[in-house]
Amino acid sequence: MTPAPKAVPDIVIGRLPLYLRALTYLAEEDRETTSSQELGDRLGISSAQIRKDLSHFGEFGKQGTGYSIQFLRQQLRRILHLEEEWEVALVGAGDLGQALAGYDSFVHRGFRIAVVFDRDPQKIGKTLGEFEIFDAEAMPTIVRDKGIEIAIIAVPAAEAQHVADTLIESGVRAILSYAPITLSIPSFVKIGYMDPLVHLQRMAFYLA
Amino acid sequence: MTPAPKAVPDIVIGRLPLYLRALTYLAEEDRETTSSQELGDRLGISSAQIRKDLSHFGEFGKQGTGYSIQFLRQQLRRILHLEEEWEVALVGAGDLGQALAGYDSFVHRGFRIAVVFDRDPQKIGKTLGEFEIFDAEAMPTIVRDKGIEIAIIAVPAAEAQHVADTLIESGVRAILSYAPITLSIPSFVKIGYMDPLVHLQRMAFYLA
Repeated sequence: MTPAPKAVPDIVIGRLPLYLRALTYLAEEDRETTSSQELGDRLGISSAQIRKDLSHFGEFGKQGTGYSIQFLRQQLRRILHLEEEWEVALVGAGDLGQALAGYDSFVHRGFRIAVVFDRDPQKIGKTLGEFEIFDAEAMPTIVRDKGIEIAIIAVPAAEAQHVADTLIESGVRAILSYAPITLSIPSFVKIGYMDPLVHLQRMAFYLA
Repeated sequence: MTPAPKAVPDIVIGRLPLYLRALTYLAEEDRETTSSQELGDRLGISSAQIRKDLSHFGEFGKQGTGYSIQFLRQQLRRILHLEEEWEVALVGAGDLGQALAGYDSFVHRGFRIAVVFDRDPQKIGKTLGEFEIFDAEAMPTIVRDKGIEIAIIAVPAAEAQHVADTLIESGVRAILSYAPITLSIPSFVKIGYMDPLVHLQRMAFYLA
């Protein structure tokens, strides 16, 4: 296995989690091998694209016999740095935070909510699902002490930039933001956005 | 204003909602004009890219004076077909459905949840936020009668394909799915996915 070269395009990296997810469903069906053709059919991606994406990282299949599902899952987890569980800070204990706190996919897919923050005195000290809600004021200390590098922002748009700044000052290097605003983020921090309206508006273009 | 040509790349369409969102924040700051430079700074997109994207649809700014925020918002709403409100069906009245039902951005950005479905007898007839929860069995009739073309799927992965099939048979042409699975969808239907783990896994690649 060659180490991941620096030059792999981000769009390729973005497809690897889809491959891993599809392989997990195949494993749950007690399947042992698959092919780029079958994966492609399930994902709406061409088999050639899948083979090309994977070839950035090594040789994972055998001509004629396809991929060992177990082996390819292991390799994708290794490539994506999911072999150990990442601790995640969740900021915002509203309805969305509640939904995220109850989402059991985190653990199975390499992440674990380690701490929840909110600035609302009515919420601090209470629980969100199984998590105690900590005062957002304690964010720098707790995030730094735990060495947390990944955070999810689930606060209103007006508060999101301040929260992001605080997280980054505290050592966070990857943020998934549900706040409907583009954040100003230094280039060494990875950012992902989850704004349903951006998707809905994009799709509306094609309707009517 | 020329009508949108068919050939505009989807990636360009995907940026228009970001421009519209940024313009809305500028308008809330009582600003009247902006520039591709300012928009670009706010969005982390080059000003040249913004000008090129907008040029697919006409001439919206004046050399030296920039863009009228109000006018450009109007034009983007027109291009994206957001001048009238779209009715949306929400399927799944769990924690995530609860968060979506309470999300006030829908209305301000061109959409309105018109009906909520769930298959759980414990939930049917109760309310989710301000919405009555209808039996998923009634989905074909209600979606068709209301002429709903857009739906949000917030059900577990194992149920999502069946829900999608039913929605599409009932006339839905655009689906935003929160279920962590790739759906099999005919090409005339637009699909968007919201799986936080796909983003987190992609970002984890760059850490460690």
